[in-house]
Amino acid sequence: VIGPDDVRRAAALLDGVAHRTQPVTSRTLGDEVVLKPECLQRSGSFKFRGAYNKISSLSRGTGVLAFSSGNHAQAVALAARLLGASATILMPTDAPRSKVEATIGYGAEVVTYDRYAEDREAIGTALAAERGLELVRPYDDELVMAGAGTAALELIEDAGPFDAIVTPLGGGGLLSGSATVARDLGVARVVGVEPAAGDDWVQSLAAGERRRIDVPRTIADGLQTNEPGRLTWEVVTRLVDEVVTVTDEQIVEAMRFAFERLKLVVEPSGAVGLAAVLNGLVGGGRIGVVLSGGNVGADRFAQLASQMSQ
Amino acid sequence: VIGPDDVRRAAALLDGVAHRTQPVTSRTLGDEVVLKPECLQRSGSFKFRGAYNKISSLSRGTGVLAFSSGNHAQAVALAARLLGASATILMPTDAPRSKVEATIGYGAEVVTYDRYAEDREAIGTALAAERGLELVRPYDDELVMAGAGTAALELIEDAGPFDAIVTPLGGGGLLSGSATVARDLGVARVVGVEPAAGDDWVQSLAAGERRRIDVPRTIADGLQTNEPGRLTWEVVTRLVDEVVTVTDEQIVEAMRFAFERLKLVVEPSGAVGLAAVLNGLVGGGRIGVVLSGGNVGADRFAQLASQMSQ
Repeated sequence: VIGPDDVRRAAALLDGVAHRTQPVTSRTLGDEVVLKPECLQRSGSFKFRGAYNKISSLSRGTGVLAFSSGNHAQAVALAARLLGASATILMPTDAPRSKVEATIGYGAEVVTYDRYAEDREAIGTALAAERGLELVRPYDDELVMAGAGTAALELIEDAGPFDAIVTPLGGGGLLSGSATVARDLGVARVVGVEPAAGDDWVQSLAAGERRRIDVPRTIADGLQTNEPGRLTWEVVTRLVDEVVTVTDEQIVEAMRFAFERLKLVVEPSGAVGLAAVLNGLVGGGRIGVVLSGGNVGADRFAQLASQMSQ
Repeated sequence: VIGPDDVRRAAALLDGVAHRTQPVTSRTLGDEVVLKPECLQRSGSFKFRGAYNKISSLSRGTGVLAFSSGNHAQAVALAARLLGASATILMPTDAPRSKVEATIGYGAEVVTYDRYAEDREAIGTALAAERGLELVRPYDDELVMAGAGTAALELIEDAGPFDAIVTPLGGGGLLSGSATVARDLGVARVVGVEPAAGDDWVQSLAAGERRRIDVPRTIADGLQTNEPGRLTWEVVTRLVDEVVTVTDEQIVEAMRFAFERLKLVVEPSGAVGLAAVLNGLVGGGRIGVVLSGGNVGADRFAQLASQMSQ
């Protein structure tokens, strides 16, 4: 599907555009664990990498469309603006106001739909056809996957070598891009981490085929995809050694750790890799962990911290 | 008292020891405002700079003593450990457990005293004499002031030129070191920011002499000094143009801004400069702001955010 050179090409394209987020360590975790703080990335998450890589491949001026109420929406909006393309984002009517405002703030047009009564795919397809827009998928796209992999590439270049690379796992874009480049660079093990309540990958890998589950209830709202992507599945089954799961309590514990020890804001979905390491689920050696995003409000953080206070 | 070359010498000494924290900007603040995130500094605050600069000037192996329940304690403990010196920290019996544990975690011995019944100076002086320890003052020391100034020096080198440099103001170590180097590098205005409830500098400057106030009630626990330092006063009155004040509500608003927009954890004392900028108290031009520290617990942050929720 994609190869390491696709990730390298994306890295060359993103050079000077994406932030090269600087690896961080913590005395508590020891020198063996190095974190890649993509919460400090433009638009607040690694999603900017894939969106920019994709949109820059389109003919200049092509408008883009994305379905998302989360980090992908903000990433597409920002990448489109930087590339002089118009962006239309389809969001459910009940999306959090802060997310809608952030997306509009990046210059996108937000179109809402009723997620209980209307079919997102049908609306999106019609809108794209009517307006001549190109759909930017959140993960099941080769350029998006390759762009996402640049986070792992930078981590290995800046702080490698590693015995294992650990990333969050939702649709599989970040994990598949990361595994592609990490395995090429000699990293022995690549580990995906998903929420225990949304273990569609664990179930699919056990079954040997993609399985769909109910939309999971978890605080990790960026990892609520309910089946593996088609393209990402091909890469992950070929290159990834393990998928492990963490509970919402473990996620909050990791967010708290990032807050107090690293002074970094990490959203629930972004903290699952750190949660896996803190709970000894990843094994030994030198470990590189992607903290994939930081888009969580202060009030939401306060609520999570107090619900699960120590 | 100190000159710009003292700050430059401290910078040479700290090179490769202190983190060179990378300046950050925010779309909301615009390109004219650049922030220096010393929350990401070793020990969690800029205080490491002064403590290391001071302790490295002592004869190898000299033990050190500090009075502090806050960032200075952790900074002295870490700097002493790195330099192979023993550190004894005198803390009140009612200091927060997390601060005591963090200090012990850096390898220091913590000696407690009853702040309502015992005299800290007398105990400290006796202990220093008995054990042959050198006292490391939190701000009223030339080497500590010069070390603190390296934060502003790096900010100007990495992101200057600036029309104004803004720093928190408690005892005056950070402001005096910053002003010394900033004025030498052609920065027109240097601004100190103190909590409205603890405006000992504003009162002292109005009176033309150092005034002592009651220990202020403010959430900015690192800025609760109740009179200007003796040495820092000399520098500030000579080089600093303005001291402005911010309320606790404005401080929480700035902490929230840092959390949501910058994905950075900034403690109340560390956020006063940003609060001044957000509230238009600093004037125009290119402005460099030191975010001086990030040592605030997740539960305390949650409490502050919910008490003053938007």
